[in-house]
Amino acid sequence: MTSPLRLGIAGLGTVGVGVVRIARKHAALLKARTGRDIVISAVSARDASKDRGVSLTGYAWETDPVALARRDDVDVFVELMGGTDGAPLDATRAALDTGKNVVTANKAMLAVHGQSLAEQAEAAGLSVRYEAAVAGGIPVVKSLTEGLAGNEITRVMGVMNGTCNYILTRMESDGLGYNALFEEAGKLGYLEADPNLDVGGIDAGHKLAILSSIAFGTQVNFDGVELEGIQRIELEDIRQAADMGYRIKLLGVAQRTGRGLEQRMQPCLVPANSPLGQLEGGTNMVVIEGDAVEQIVLRGPGAGQGPTASAVMGDVCDIARGIKLPTFGQPAQSLAETPAAQSGLPAPFYLRMSLLDKPGALAKIATILGNSGISIDRMRQYGHSAETAPVLIVTHKTARAALDEALNAMQGTDVMASDPVALRIESV
Amino acid sequence: MTSPLRLGIAGLGTVGVGVVRIARKHAALLKARTGRDIVISAVSARDASKDRGVSLTGYAWETDPVALARRDDVDVFVELMGGTDGAPLDATRAALDTGKNVVTANKAMLAVHGQSLAEQAEAAGLSVRYEAAVAGGIPVVKSLTEGLAGNEITRVMGVMNGTCNYILTRMESDGLGYNALFEEAGKLGYLEADPNLDVGGIDAGHKLAILSSIAFGTQVNFDGVELEGIQRIELEDIRQAADMGYRIKLLGVAQRTGRGLEQRMQPCLVPANSPLGQLEGGTNMVVIEGDAVEQIVLRGPGAGQGPTASAVMGDVCDIARGIKLPTFGQPAQSLAETPAAQSGLPAPFYLRMSLLDKPGALAKIATILGNSGISIDRMRQYGHSAETAPVLIVTHKTARAALDEALNAMQGTDVMASDPVALRIESV
Repeated sequence: MTSPLRLGIAGLGTVGVGVVRIARKHAALLKARTGRDIVISAVSARDASKDRGVSLTGYAWETDPVALARRDDVDVFVELMGGTDGAPLDATRAALDTGKNVVTANKAMLAVHGQSLAEQAEAAGLSVRYEAAVAGGIPVVKSLTEGLAGNEITRVMGVMNGTCNYILTRMESDGLGYNALFEEAGKLGYLEADPNLDVGGIDAGHKLAILSSIAFGTQVNFDGVELEGIQRIELEDIRQAADMGYRIKLLGVAQRTGRGLEQRMQPCLVPANSPLGQLEGGTNMVVIEGDAVEQIVLRGPGAGQGPTASAVMGDVCDIARGIKLPTFGQPAQSLAETPAAQSGLPAPFYLRMSLLDKPGALAKIATILGNSGISIDRMRQYGHSAETAPVLIVTHKTARAALDEALNAMQGTDVMASDPVALRIESV
Repeated sequence: MTSPLRLGIAGLGTVGVGVVRIARKHAALLKARTGRDIVISAVSARDASKDRGVSLTGYAWETDPVALARRDDVDVFVELMGGTDGAPLDATRAALDTGKNVVTANKAMLAVHGQSLAEQAEAAGLSVRYEAAVAGGIPVVKSLTEGLAGNEITRVMGVMNGTCNYILTRMESDGLGYNALFEEAGKLGYLEADPNLDVGGIDAGHKLAILSSIAFGTQVNFDGVELEGIQRIELEDIRQAADMGYRIKLLGVAQRTGRGLEQRMQPCLVPANSPLGQLEGGTNMVVIEGDAVEQIVLRGPGAGQGPTASAVMGDVCDIARGIKLPTFGQPAQSLAETPAAQSGLPAPFYLRMSLLDKPGALAKIATILGNSGISIDRMRQYGHSAETAPVLIVTHKTARAALDEALNAMQGTDVMASDPVALRIESV
């Protein structure tokens, strides 16, 4: 194990440059810790002439990541391009085809192609590692796969999109509306090229699907994640939640139910004084519950050059040290195909709706809730425009199915000015 | 790797029984995750007839842990007896002598004999694993050694003794004095047989010394930990701290200074709204700061059957999976002997002193502080008995050496009724 471990890095954006920086700055430290020199053989990116603020001297340059992945002088293919399909996937498969281990930060690719990549890697005795794909610098994949391997995991929860948490936090702290903060986040470079990946909850949903697979021994199933973004959250929701002692977070929850695996990534109300409620700005948090360990809370930066590169290098060090594990913690062939299922456990819900200004409108809504067996904890009409009346309702605990039935019935009336917003009040 | 991994468990107290429970309950899960059956060959404890609430049928019984450690049918010696020297140390050495890997929850043994055990294990190509020794169920050893291996670690902090945190939290929440809560903790079984291990900060100091070694690549040096317990904290300190927006925590801090390694485990004031400040009851928290990852916060149960057994089984699973690392993250032979050193960086301090009721007493104290170059942020005399006047002082930032000089000079006066209490106000 004294030969150098040679990296080929595809993608020299923020994270790729961060990995180069660590490899250069901490060469001695990395060797002390892993017993091997960790060196960069080659890199690839679109534009070879761009100044990235770090020296790339001595590294071979490939324009094609697939060619990089196939190079004989690469032991570990480090995929930092991002994107579900196309070049990153082709290059990852090429790396596995030619006997390389893979380290990636690509949550989208893993959430969609994780099972087949895991099968390919494991058949060839190779590793696919992806600590950086989930919750940035937090070693959550390692904690779940290795540290908590003695537990039956009962629930995984997390705030795993820093941009959404930044927007929601600023809405409360600065009293700014969603649209203004969305624009600001774009200007600050906090949004993906397709912003719906962030604010639509897709990015966080990818991460949840990956963690679920490890936690529950199931095939990664991103299509099974019930997704809802933060686009419809209004300042009034933030204020009403605060008034009741809650904060709104884009919260992922995954747990087994009697009928399958529940995975949801939705804005929820969580107690303001809970660790999740107190999370501010771009910080991420993952909560893992297991039958032996009870509850572990991991918190740290969810993005950024240093933290994400730290996670990539942790994986590289594991490979240098000879640590080898199945991709999702148990052999891919043994991962169960588990149907998506909603938990039948009741929860209170927060509802905001805009009613048309007609006589009896509120009575119709209340009747519908009553007919679905949903009792109301509080109800409030908070202001009034010319034609619509905004109404807030907090329900007592109700099964999700009953709520869906009621929301459906509401849409069938002639009193709704728009679709209601329904947010679960989560006990965390 | 398909042969069973055979455990020999020495010590059947709370944690040992927890490990037996997991091994029995999760046999299938452990096999799915590690690819091997994890079985218990033999156990040892003092009293074979005691009902421990779990079946021990099928396990050989040894009264002597050294005999257990030497058994041919044991692959991993699981040391859960506790204690720095004597039987646990003898048995651990016997296990290494006879080619067994070791998993232990014994922080005292590692803090004192860690270096020599690591050298012995590594010379024989064996592992000594100890996730359960630090912060109970939190996978902090793994996070630091593996997940953050790409970082130069800059600071490690932690609240790592649940009993102390329980006492300090209850002092604030219930307004009870230290002595009453100390007694209560004893009755609840929260105190070690020698309670000074808990309230004197020794147990937490052991944990800090272990984490320091991993973080900074230094030989574990428990003697270098500046230790101070919580015994002298009074209700008035808790109240005064709360009034200023702080909480008092038994906080460990380890960081490199230009002259060596600073390790201290002392009651400190931390901001009440920081993650450390918000930590309540028996929960532990470790904060790790690295040059790339910035800051990671890990939180979870610091003790108890399930959480501690979870950590032990995580180590067992690593061994079953063939994961092998140097004990402290880099080869024991390469760990530096680093002198203990106090940081010269200034910090504000909270001082409480009891002055004799003499004219000019307060002036003497103020003069001494001034002479040491320490400026006072606030000073308050808070009540008065027949003969003594309690005085509180919060200083502006001052170097620790200057404060020590002043405290020393105060002892030389004729106005002190007792030794002053000095608590650092830590920025976290």
